Amino acid sequence: MADMLNPGATIGILGGGQLGRMLSVAAARLGFKTHIFEPGANPPAGQVADRVTTAAYDDAEALKAFADSVDVITYEFENIPTQALDLLEEHRPIRPGREALRVSQDRLTEKAFLQELGLKTAPFADVTNLDGLRDALDAIGTPAILKTRRFGYDGKGQARLNTPEDAEAALADMAGAPSILEGFVDFTHEVSVIAARGIDGQVACFDPGENVHRDGILHTTTIPARLSPAQRMDAVLLAANILNALDYVGVMGVELFVTAQGLIVNEVAPRVHNSGHWTQNGCAVDQFEQHIRAVAGWPLCDGQRHSDVVMENLIGSDMDRVPELAREQDVALHLYGKAEVKAGRKMGHFNRIVRKG
Amino acid sequence: MADMLNPGATIGILGGGQLGRMLSVAAARLGFKTHIFEPGANPPAGQVADRVTTAAYDDAEALKAFADSVDVITYEFENIPTQALDLLEEHRPIRPGREALRVSQDRLTEKAFLQELGLKTAPFADVTNLDGLRDALDAIGTPAILKTRRFGYDGKGQARLNTPEDAEAALADMAGAPSILEGFVDFTHEVSVIAARGIDGQVACFDPGENVHRDGILHTTTIPARLSPAQRMDAVLLAANILNALDYVGVMGVELFVTAQGLIVNEVAPRVHNSGHWTQNGCAVDQFEQHIRAVAGWPLCDGQRHSDVVMENLIGSDMDRVPELAREQDVALHLYGKAEVKAGRKMGHFNRIVRKG
Repeated sequence: MADMLNPGATIGILGGGQLGRMLSVAAARLGFKTHIFEPGANPPAGQVADRVTTAAYDDAEALKAFADSVDVITYEFENIPTQALDLLEEHRPIRPGREALRVSQDRLTEKAFLQELGLKTAPFADVTNLDGLRDALDAIGTPAILKTRRFGYDGKGQARLNTPEDAEAALADMAGAPSILEGFVDFTHEVSVIAARGIDGQVACFDPGENVHRDGILHTTTIPARLSPAQRMDAVLLAANILNALDYVGVMGVELFVTAQGLIVNEVAPRVHNSGHWTQNGCAVDQFEQHIRAVAGWPLCDGQRHSDVVMENLIGSDMDRVPELAREQDVALHLYGKAEVKAGRKMGHFNRIVRKG
Repeated sequence: MADMLNPGATIGILGGGQLGRMLSVAAARLGFKTHIFEPGANPPAGQVADRVTTAAYDDAEALKAFADSVDVITYEFENIPTQALDLLEEHRPIRPGREALRVSQDRLTEKAFLQELGLKTAPFADVTNLDGLRDALDAIGTPAILKTRRFGYDGKGQARLNTPEDAEAALADMAGAPSILEGFVDFTHEVSVIAARGIDGQVACFDPGENVHRDGILHTTTIPARLSPAQRMDAVLLAANILNALDYVGVMGVELFVTAQGLIVNEVAPRVHNSGHWTQNGCAVDQFEQHIRAVAGWPLCDGQRHSDVVMENLIGSDMDRVPELAREQDVALHLYGKAEVKAGRKMGHFNRIVRKG
């Protein structure tokens, strides 16, 4: 491909957490250097990156120097300040592109975008004040969940409303931030599709995984997910639909609820996704390398797996399980090198390979 | 295990080439930081390491500072100067230990060690001068190969003798270095066992791979190797024999010739080995992580593979094949991030996964 970035080139990654870390390793596997931009000190990705810039997203000089030092820019999270993106984009291409970020940075915009594509979502309503919330509750009913439109993840910035009487407290939790009320969906299980789109428009999906959450955080992903062939096809087509509409380049995580009425899109993440970590031990090319391939203009892999896998997250004190897990055969550990164990913090994960035959 | 090094600890690696690079990535996967010690500038391993020291092996101050900054020391190659090892060992444990290095740094010592263990080797003789070489040729015959006893790799420091008349020229090639004459072995093919031994004495072997060389450099390794069940068992027991005799901790590559008279040990390498690269895409835990596990006092994996694999090296201008290889499904590329392509230089490798069923 004419657009292929040559080995030896440098890929800039915004964000130095575990996703940046695993992207950095994947980039190195293809001969690329990485440069991490991260406001926090001692980022996990820095331990496996060629270079790290520690600076804030409003540090124009640092952003410019970062952009000038790399060939292309990608990111490990979607909540990058718009001004930083504006500045970076003047210097180097950002992949996935701005449209994907615009849509995914705002839950309301995202839901509207999905509806326009003809995809099903949970019922939702824009909420700006208490009257608006009460109207929304009338329309959607309870239980429902109030979420800030922007900058939420892993259950943060969310309040559950069991009855209309919870309205005032829930709104207070939003601390004045523009919010969206979402109705609950009656689903049997959640699956996600890790989809990728190349610079040439080629789309490839990994097999959908089935997700189980605990305390609002992903607990396990099991491959293959319980899906009928028709549902599996639906999931893949729907993901491709989203990627094509955004002229997307890179890997995207698409979370879906499986219901009697079909698949309902829960949310999309314009980046590698926790529910795709199983690919590290299930496929020749994992989601991290798939993302780097797309961003670097390389051909994608087809997403076929050689093994079934169950991925499980290690959260906080789950790290105490490491010595025992290390003794288990067919278990591949992936630890993130985070200095401090904290409750609710993702410290690592492991993939249990299910041997065939 | 009481001796398990905790995630967050630092593993020091002597040597910053591709083996150090892949060891560094494996260490990071278990949550370890790595510190590379390498005399050459811009080592490939430095791109994925937490820290790099660029210094010579006779720089006592740099060696001491390096040792003090790490919890345990390992290495990617066996030809580390003895004085450097002496100094390092005063500060931190070196794994695999000195005995393995003593034996493998000298072809004559290695052959004698193997013979003492009752293992078969090619016929060999110590050569110190022309008379000695002539005596050796009388005993061993031609064709034969003259090798320096120390510091040879990938066919360097070797001269082939087709007739006794080649003696003088071959000896001149050794440039006065103590040498060993080795007879040729009539073998059908070469296999290697990537064996590991834990700090607790546990031994685990990956399935033997079959090696094909080109121009004295490994070209491909194919898993599984053509071996009868009895030969396979022999290969594993023989490798375990070597590891136990050395009270070895880490991964070792054992190259074997398959002959009508049984398995003959070609050479041993006290480190991860090119012929074990297939494990990256064939096993839950690859040879690099297996080595780090051993060095860090962790339990070993059992070495079972989930897929058959063919590994092929990318030497020099083979890098031109990368765009085409990237398009092939089931091919996993591993490039080393070396700045300059040179003839005969190992630039990367790829693993072709053979899908089962």
